[in-house]
Amino acid sequence: MTTFRSVRLSQRPVGLPSAETWSIDPEEMPELKHNEFAIKIELISLDPAMRGWLDDRPSYLPPVEIGAIMRAGSLGTVIESSNQRFPVGAQVVGNFGATEIAISDGTGARVINTDLASAPMYLGALGMTGMTAYFGFFELGVPRAGDTVVVSAAAGAVGSIVGQLAKINGCTVIGIAGGKEKCDYVTEALGFDVCLDYKTDIPMRKQLGAALQEVGSKGVDIYFDNVGGEILNANLAYLSFGARVVICGAISQYNATEITPGPSNYMNLLVKRARMQGFLVFDYENKFPVAQRRIGKWLAQGKITAPETIVKGEITEFPETLNRLFAGNNMGKLLLQIN
Amino acid sequence: MTTFRSVRLSQRPVGLPSAETWSIDPEEMPELKHNEFAIKIELISLDPAMRGWLDDRPSYLPPVEIGAIMRAGSLGTVIESSNQRFPVGAQVVGNFGATEIAISDGTGARVINTDLASAPMYLGALGMTGMTAYFGFFELGVPRAGDTVVVSAAAGAVGSIVGQLAKINGCTVIGIAGGKEKCDYVTEALGFDVCLDYKTDIPMRKQLGAALQEVGSKGVDIYFDNVGGEILNANLAYLSFGARVVICGAISQYNATEITPGPSNYMNLLVKRARMQGFLVFDYENKFPVAQRRIGKWLAQGKITAPETIVKGEITEFPETLNRLFAGNNMGKLLLQIN
Repeated sequence: MTTFRSVRLSQRPVGLPSAETWSIDPEEMPELKHNEFAIKIELISLDPAMRGWLDDRPSYLPPVEIGAIMRAGSLGTVIESSNQRFPVGAQVVGNFGATEIAISDGTGARVINTDLASAPMYLGALGMTGMTAYFGFFELGVPRAGDTVVVSAAAGAVGSIVGQLAKINGCTVIGIAGGKEKCDYVTEALGFDVCLDYKTDIPMRKQLGAALQEVGSKGVDIYFDNVGGEILNANLAYLSFGARVVICGAISQYNATEITPGPSNYMNLLVKRARMQGFLVFDYENKFPVAQRRIGKWLAQGKITAPETIVKGEITEFPETLNRLFAGNNMGKLLLQIN
Repeated sequence: MTTFRSVRLSQRPVGLPSAETWSIDPEEMPELKHNEFAIKIELISLDPAMRGWLDDRPSYLPPVEIGAIMRAGSLGTVIESSNQRFPVGAQVVGNFGATEIAISDGTGARVINTDLASAPMYLGALGMTGMTAYFGFFELGVPRAGDTVVVSAAAGAVGSIVGQLAKINGCTVIGIAGGKEKCDYVTEALGFDVCLDYKTDIPMRKQLGAALQEVGSKGVDIYFDNVGGEILNANLAYLSFGARVVICGAISQYNATEITPGPSNYMNLLVKRARMQGFLVFDYENKFPVAQRRIGKWLAQGKITAPETIVKGEITEFPETLNRLFAGNNMGKLLLQIN
């Protein structure tokens, strides 16, 4: 009898998730049913969106149920199978959850080839992260060469790719990140033109105004928002005519315990005939193969660098690793590698 | 020597404009230069946007200068002319300002035919008001028959037309207005399906939820916003998938003396893959003739009723008449008729 551990939601957090949010106990592996297979999980994706899945309110996905295994993209090797498409030994990626062993019937799962790209890439630049960057930027941002693009959480998983897609497309790119180390990385390793540090005392609005002058731009053509709050509001103040604000996330307020104020500068959408639009990557699923081929090519050509922070440890490190996202102390795609 | 009076900006208001905001003194009519003509003004348009033009900050138009005649759409009869296109006796409409006599070189002016439509219509349904309703609704709202459309300031100049355009296009229409009298008018005379009274004690979010149930709708497909504030926020809470929020105005906050909070529910744009977009009617100028023909036809067919409140008096009534807009006690297009 095989036992394994999984991260289950024990109680819904108020604010930042804590130890009480989760239970991580040994459980027994059930018998496989027809078409099912068991995966030994090796890599678990950690994403800001996870925080929203813990709240019991209507959203784009039902909340994770109390007692259920935490929803997560993950990746591993098939160790037992009654499904011909996923034979023992195959490496597979899917929504397998935060667990040491997952049982799947193949829904949303696919076999990967780690000779073509490293395993972390399948959860990062070639996974939901890269798809989010790609479709948000191209479908909602509608970039044109010469556009000024601002990206918040620029050293993060999605933001780092968005900025590089913008550079590939001939845009001027201003990143926003927390701290000198991240900012240096964003300009030096990722090739953004400028990076603003939101952790300094200088208000973002002032920094952004100066940065636009520095790059010789009249305003923000595309703002790709991962953070919400004052950074979103500062960008709204500098929109160019016909600007596009892409709402991808709002990590600054995911753990808020009170209603966070909305962007008071939204009326600039009128003055500048601009739009602010949200999206979910799932809506573009039928176009994923094309996007994956393109990003794969840019990765191979060295035109995209996909930074990643891989935490190695036991499944019990999941809660603490998740909270690193909200403390803002990771670079690029955050993954938990379990062995 | 002819003298006339005009409303000039005396000092910039903080909050609601007051007597000190304006000076209305007799002045002498200058000599006409080549191509100029003089118009005896008979009707002056009053619009919520006027409040924004009084503030000295960057916007879609430069602010009205201190000492300048107040910017306003107005209409009258040519009384003196050195311009062949605008002969004495012609009735003309244009941005002639809040004045008894205007001098124009014809820029933005056109001759009207009051046999085809009444004079007030040329400032209302066939003027900027109607154009604002038409282009905001069709170009940004992108209506489809069966859509649920919510319109705030539903008894106002623009809102009353938007709702009727929506009905003509097979939409279900929920209006929002202040007071029972207005609400009755909106459903009975204008044919909206429902009208919610924001002046009652029941929070708008609750009212809107109940109204959507009543009309059998799953959510707001188009929200046409003239008011901002809590009404905008309530609508954001009920967006349908792919909803369009059209930002036309924000009258609830034009006189605010402190920063008004933005719409905290904006993240629903992401959950519902929706967009919020601003526009200015001037951008569609090349399409005005088509829109005017269509609206003219619907007016003639009785498919659109264009309510109007015409205040008759001296030019000195301009300040008080303007403030009626912000008190919310007028129905439809507000005009000052001077004789």
